Amino acid sequence: MTTKRIGGIDLSVSLINTKFMLNFTVGPVQSSDAVRAIGAEQVPYFRTEEFSELMLENERLLKKFANAPNDSKAVFMTCSGSGGMETAIMNCLTKDDKALVINGGSFGERFVELLSLHGIPFTEIKIERGKALKPKHLTPFDGKGYTAFLVQKHETSTGVHYDMDLVSEFCKRNGCFMIVDTISSFLCDPFDMAALGVGVMITGSQKALACPPGVALMILAPSALIRIKKTKCCCQYLDLKLALKNQERGQTPWTPAVGILRQINARLKEIDSMGGAETEISRTSHLASYFRARIKEFDLPFEIISESLSNAVTPLHPTTQSAYEIFLKIKNEYGMWVCPNGGDLRDSVFRVGHIGCLTEADYDRLINAFVDLREKSFI
Amino acid sequence: MTTKRIGGIDLSVSLINTKFMLNFTVGPVQSSDAVRAIGAEQVPYFRTEEFSELMLENERLLKKFANAPNDSKAVFMTCSGSGGMETAIMNCLTKDDKALVINGGSFGERFVELLSLHGIPFTEIKIERGKALKPKHLTPFDGKGYTAFLVQKHETSTGVHYDMDLVSEFCKRNGCFMIVDTISSFLCDPFDMAALGVGVMITGSQKALACPPGVALMILAPSALIRIKKTKCCCQYLDLKLALKNQERGQTPWTPAVGILRQINARLKEIDSMGGAETEISRTSHLASYFRARIKEFDLPFEIISESLSNAVTPLHPTTQSAYEIFLKIKNEYGMWVCPNGGDLRDSVFRVGHIGCLTEADYDRLINAFVDLREKSFI
Repeated sequence: MTTKRIGGIDLSVSLINTKFMLNFTVGPVQSSDAVRAIGAEQVPYFRTEEFSELMLENERLLKKFANAPNDSKAVFMTCSGSGGMETAIMNCLTKDDKALVINGGSFGERFVELLSLHGIPFTEIKIERGKALKPKHLTPFDGKGYTAFLVQKHETSTGVHYDMDLVSEFCKRNGCFMIVDTISSFLCDPFDMAALGVGVMITGSQKALACPPGVALMILAPSALIRIKKTKCCCQYLDLKLALKNQERGQTPWTPAVGILRQINARLKEIDSMGGAETEISRTSHLASYFRARIKEFDLPFEIISESLSNAVTPLHPTTQSAYEIFLKIKNEYGMWVCPNGGDLRDSVFRVGHIGCLTEADYDRLINAFVDLREKSFI
Repeated sequence: MTTKRIGGIDLSVSLINTKFMLNFTVGPVQSSDAVRAIGAEQVPYFRTEEFSELMLENERLLKKFANAPNDSKAVFMTCSGSGGMETAIMNCLTKDDKALVINGGSFGERFVELLSLHGIPFTEIKIERGKALKPKHLTPFDGKGYTAFLVQKHETSTGVHYDMDLVSEFCKRNGCFMIVDTISSFLCDPFDMAALGVGVMITGSQKALACPPGVALMILAPSALIRIKKTKCCCQYLDLKLALKNQERGQTPWTPAVGILRQINARLKEIDSMGGAETEISRTSHLASYFRARIKEFDLPFEIISESLSNAVTPLHPTTQSAYEIFLKIKNEYGMWVCPNGGDLRDSVFRVGHIGCLTEADYDRLINAFVDLREKSFI
């Protein structure tokens, strides 16, 4: 057991204050100073030309960072990422579809629940938790008349990043409409919406966009726009026909989360000025590698459980202590949040995120806390 | 024509900066320093005991200020007020209901649209715009087997405050379940949920709660809880069964607008420490009276169009200029927002709100701008 620490970082409990908690969860995450400064401003009235311009700029930058196909549209829904997932299903799929859905964790499970609720015929492809998607999972469904495919690009609950090329090739071969939950992977891992032929992509304000939660961002390819036109949405609030019509002039049908949309604008421009999506992805990738190398270097009693990692998060199985107890200890005694898991992974897995405004020094602090816990025989 | 002004207020255009715009709309409105300070903080991770406690405190204070009946529950939905209206209908009404709905403006119209979309049988009571609700509107429907009643306490689009005692008596006589949109009137005009026998009340974060938009707050009386239990909601995201089950422990089924919920907490405590709902209502009432007296005193060319005013807003019909042109002029040349109307009231009505963090001096500034516009023969 090594007892060395990364130098000079004071871990004394007296420094803990919720205002200065270090946040390694996968959302909400830490925001930049520019984003937080907007949070302190008065929220402006929004049925104005000025706000419309901001919304159109948000649309333009979001589409740019996803490499959205020509003639795509983006909309900004005031709801959670899960609300965005349901919006996609309600507006793009019908009882005439035959959908395939990848279920490798709690977000895949959510897609399954939503398809059931909305009466969309579907087949579920169960992937063992922590395992990668492989050709063998898809080939049995080739040529079977499937019309739609739903997948998490990154199953956040287990930290598994699925092979999108594999899915894309299957969808192109079979003429499937692709709905991709990129909620936790957008701006963390490369994503080329046009090349993959994705119909709908969904992300959230509180992941790599590092703004407060409250807004689901969606990009709708021309193939989605055709489907939306033909589909009757059962919910007015989440009706994409209304959202699209209003977004034409940079507005929304209902009062949106104006403050968060202004923060998204600052953040998108920040990313743009730093070099765009690629730069942000390599920043995240660097932090993920840094943390993973330290876990190894300090020989911590954690196993990385995912066969196919995203840059967004490192899922860890602690071999000597309950994962949830580690989450509580790190929160209450070290002033940091790692991300606990719910359900039956509660005791076996916790996750460390690499999104938001974080630095190597922040990870040093977390590693030192783990080392400290080992010295105290807690882990 | 009087040319006097309220002394010492500089109206020069050079002072205009969107960061310092004065906001007299009916939402989003101006927030207190305490609320804005939270906007500048990092948003904390929320699947914690600490956030649960905050949410339960939000529930307790909200119910207190509405005088909610015993055993009511409150939920906090990440959506707009319109989302809250639809949530109420989707979760509490079925095809077996026979609803009455008051339609006296665009929010009454929204209730009508939602009832149609969700297949709830209903009869619409059209009230002429600007007119009060009178016994003659309701008596034809006595003893006709109606089971539900939907009404705006304050029809925000025209600034008409409806007589809730009248509605309540009708509902008690006829055994109707009451859904009341108090979005723009909560904490502006007295509201006693228990005494009125209201089943569901809905409000929004960006009205008198003076927080950023993004959260609909709902109180559900025991009569609503029974209905929710029996009703199948067609939308998972807005399913109150899930929201209620999670709120039992101060949580939400999906990632909520954590930042706004923390701001709501600060604001509810601020109101509580200042004397509660009554104090806030009299503060608003005082500002409304102050503004209305100045309009008269300065003999401005505006008619107050509502037969029954709320303290929340003063709806004005300008007799010498398009209402929308006045909105634009006040925004672009005086750095203030009044609230424009949409649709066919666009040119005939604008509104001046009395909610949010405003003072008499702010109204002096607005009155002086109007006086200035009259001197320039714009109005």
